[in-house]
Amino acid sequence: MSNTNQQPPAPNGAHHELGNGKKHILINAFDMSTVGHLSPGQWKNPVDKSATKRRLDYWIELAKLLERGGVNALFLADTYGGYDTYEGSVDNCIRRAAQWPITDPTIDFQPISAMAAVTKNLSFAITASTSFEPPYLLAKRFSTLDHFTQGRIGWNIVTSWKKSAFKAIGLDNPIEHDERYRQADEYLRVLYKLWESSWSPTALSPDPANDSYVDPAQVRTINHKGKYFSLDAKHIVDPSPQRTPFLFQAGTSSAGSDFAATHAEAIFVSGHSPSVLRPKIDAIRALAAQKGRDPRSIKVFATFTPIVADTDELAQEKLKELKKYASTIGGLVLVSGWTGIDLWTPRLVAEHAAIGGLGPVSVGSPQTVADELERWVKEADVDGFNIGYVTTPGTFEEVVDLLIPELRRRGVYPELPDPSEEPVTAREKIYGKGQNGLRDDHEGSRYKYHLYQEDPPYKSEEEGQA
Amino acid sequence: MSNTNQQPPAPNGAHHELGNGKKHILINAFDMSTVGHLSPGQWKNPVDKSATKRRLDYWIELAKLLERGGVNALFLADTYGGYDTYEGSVDNCIRRAAQWPITDPTIDFQPISAMAAVTKNLSFAITASTSFEPPYLLAKRFSTLDHFTQGRIGWNIVTSWKKSAFKAIGLDNPIEHDERYRQADEYLRVLYKLWESSWSPTALSPDPANDSYVDPAQVRTINHKGKYFSLDAKHIVDPSPQRTPFLFQAGTSSAGSDFAATHAEAIFVSGHSPSVLRPKIDAIRALAAQKGRDPRSIKVFATFTPIVADTDELAQEKLKELKKYASTIGGLVLVSGWTGIDLWTPRLVAEHAAIGGLGPVSVGSPQTVADELERWVKEADVDGFNIGYVTTPGTFEEVVDLLIPELRRRGVYPELPDPSEEPVTAREKIYGKGQNGLRDDHEGSRYKYHLYQEDPPYKSEEEGQA
Repeated sequence: MSNTNQQPPAPNGAHHELGNGKKHILINAFDMSTVGHLSPGQWKNPVDKSATKRRLDYWIELAKLLERGGVNALFLADTYGGYDTYEGSVDNCIRRAAQWPITDPTIDFQPISAMAAVTKNLSFAITASTSFEPPYLLAKRFSTLDHFTQGRIGWNIVTSWKKSAFKAIGLDNPIEHDERYRQADEYLRVLYKLWESSWSPTALSPDPANDSYVDPAQVRTINHKGKYFSLDAKHIVDPSPQRTPFLFQAGTSSAGSDFAATHAEAIFVSGHSPSVLRPKIDAIRALAAQKGRDPRSIKVFATFTPIVADTDELAQEKLKELKKYASTIGGLVLVSGWTGIDLWTPRLVAEHAAIGGLGPVSVGSPQTVADELERWVKEADVDGFNIGYVTTPGTFEEVVDLLIPELRRRGVYPELPDPSEEPVTAREKIYGKGQNGLRDDHEGSRYKYHLYQEDPPYKSEEEGQA
Repeated sequence: MSNTNQQPPAPNGAHHELGNGKKHILINAFDMSTVGHLSPGQWKNPVDKSATKRRLDYWIELAKLLERGGVNALFLADTYGGYDTYEGSVDNCIRRAAQWPITDPTIDFQPISAMAAVTKNLSFAITASTSFEPPYLLAKRFSTLDHFTQGRIGWNIVTSWKKSAFKAIGLDNPIEHDERYRQADEYLRVLYKLWESSWSPTALSPDPANDSYVDPAQVRTINHKGKYFSLDAKHIVDPSPQRTPFLFQAGTSSAGSDFAATHAEAIFVSGHSPSVLRPKIDAIRALAAQKGRDPRSIKVFATFTPIVADTDELAQEKLKELKKYASTIGGLVLVSGWTGIDLWTPRLVAEHAAIGGLGPVSVGSPQTVADELERWVKEADVDGFNIGYVTTPGTFEEVVDLLIPELRRRGVYPELPDPSEEPVTAREKIYGKGQNGLRDDHEGSRYKYHLYQEDPPYKSEEEGQA
């Protein structure tokens, strides 16, 4: 297979400029270990397998399907509590199975190893919060998983805001919004120190003659005393293929954008129309440029729920069938939670939200939906999509069997990698072969082992504490 | 296969009394996601695969091997920091790979899903500490894994004591020993509330006609305000096959014994000779009886490292070969850490400890080693063994191919389960078919949904707070 398919490195970070005015589109599958993710109510639909996510089989079959389609990554959302804004109660969240109950694919990453064992190329992006656990434990967890997947791990960084989650953890109240991002900024810097600065690249050099497996002089103790975290430890896992997992982040608020422009390698956005998103995306890229980063190196993924059939007519019929099962109240529960407004009136919004949440839904033939994706890429300047499902694996089968082949025909989607070639890491898939570690223009690169030694780069952290 | 092999329920908890004066012996494989577990230095031995534990293949192949042998459980140790007692430094822990570096099989449970996918009968016992994370998150994690494995999960409860671990987490100092157990006791009670009391057995009753997946009236909010933890939440995962994972615990100190007699369904002990262990085991069983539990329902597993070959002579030759690779200093690092004494003098102890740690090592033919196991069962009154390895999977292959067949010939080890029968849960394997949940005489049963409703049973917790 040609290098084009492996998305070779491009100094400007625009891996997928194909030179013909076309770009490769990145496609992630968006899922969550819960019965109703973005389209509550479909558990009543006999074709939907949402309710089988408690069994490993669901995840293993899904991973195989996505691998077969050449999907970039499986993006797994998580939440730490129920949605309780609607009617001021969690009852309808529970009754309608609107992201509740939820098993734990993410903070625990539990099905990942089973999925990694049956795939070679699929990446995994896992949601985990900076609010609830010591950075040392999270660092250990991601390093382990990056080893097990041979570098196919991404982290969707979230800061938590749900009251119910804080009550569950035993904390009184969510931390205030901007403060949360300052805390998250320090959290990331502690992680960079553990992942990038603790181990020299040559520390692990087994020397049987001297009964020496690791050279302790090359494993630095990280001594961090910050505003929110303190730590005095060596990273306990030897460097994994990527060291720092590929970093995703959502959030287009002001504090969120600053964080994204500093730390995110990919951002995840959601909006009804390209014109709503475009200015936010432009602003984040501009902010990244101010920070010395190639603005094109930040990849933007928009939520997108396709309903695809062979023809537009068949797709509309499919939509009609899906609507039968949609839970309007489930939609209300989610939208109320996301917006913080108890939406007991605008049922129209909720009816719409019961399929695809607040993101766009495109219904039609592969040609119609591919046109829509290309329009989004052009008008919103996004690099790819997090594909939400209505029924699972139904929607993902449509993507793999109908939509991706159409995108390939148009030359905007990579062919499957050559099985004889070494699989690439999550970061190499985005930035090209050889780019396993953070790019040099990324903030975390200031913490790389040798740089750290010469000039401890804590500047912006001190600013953060001022 | 007969019920004998499935260990049918016995009202006295002595599942494996065979009526002929013989008992079935329980065998666990004892491993840790680190290069040198109990026999540091063997990474230099070409037959040892310890250094490949960063790859999933290691775990998948090990799980298949143990499944083939009919081993009860894979018991996974964990640690949260390096051993730094020896010479007051972690340097030799690092250099000799004495349980360092360590990936994360346990707090994260990462390879478990891959192993669960290739096995049906093997159970998994996972070490996790009560010291570092909110009970709500641990509860979610275990419930998820109990779903994924269909009830094959055990938890090895530890309270943490390593200074280095606390420094890594950002806490100043380990909590004082007895206090740690009081905290752990409350931690367990919070977990019982989440696992046992939150969901009615009939809460999850999908009713498509009413757009109702779960009945919120049957999912109780746990409102816990204790000395160490507070929580105001519903458990976010629906009940898993066992609800509470099968509970292991180590610790024969006074506070540890009280905790074990209250909460443990199995205890894990380590000692050089049966006569040293016997009084401790008797004391815990007596304490359990005082608390109203069947003393025989507490299963005791002793660490045991076998070196087995076809004949005694060949086994001795094997030992000689293994000694070539043993790291004496690695042994010193571990023993110093475990005992809290910087053992820079008694190298004899360390030389011994470099194979099998502080537990017994038995070298010989299958007959010799089986005799030794039977002697331990009789003299120490243990129910089974956590088998440590010298090389892996070498030791486990010896157990599966040589030792277990010999035990079967003696009628003290169950045959493989009939593949046509439904696999049983971890708890059913110990207490017999049908016993998926906690036994009625177990402390946690006081928190079962219907009991909790009638009479909130917080008595001993209040005592704990007095």
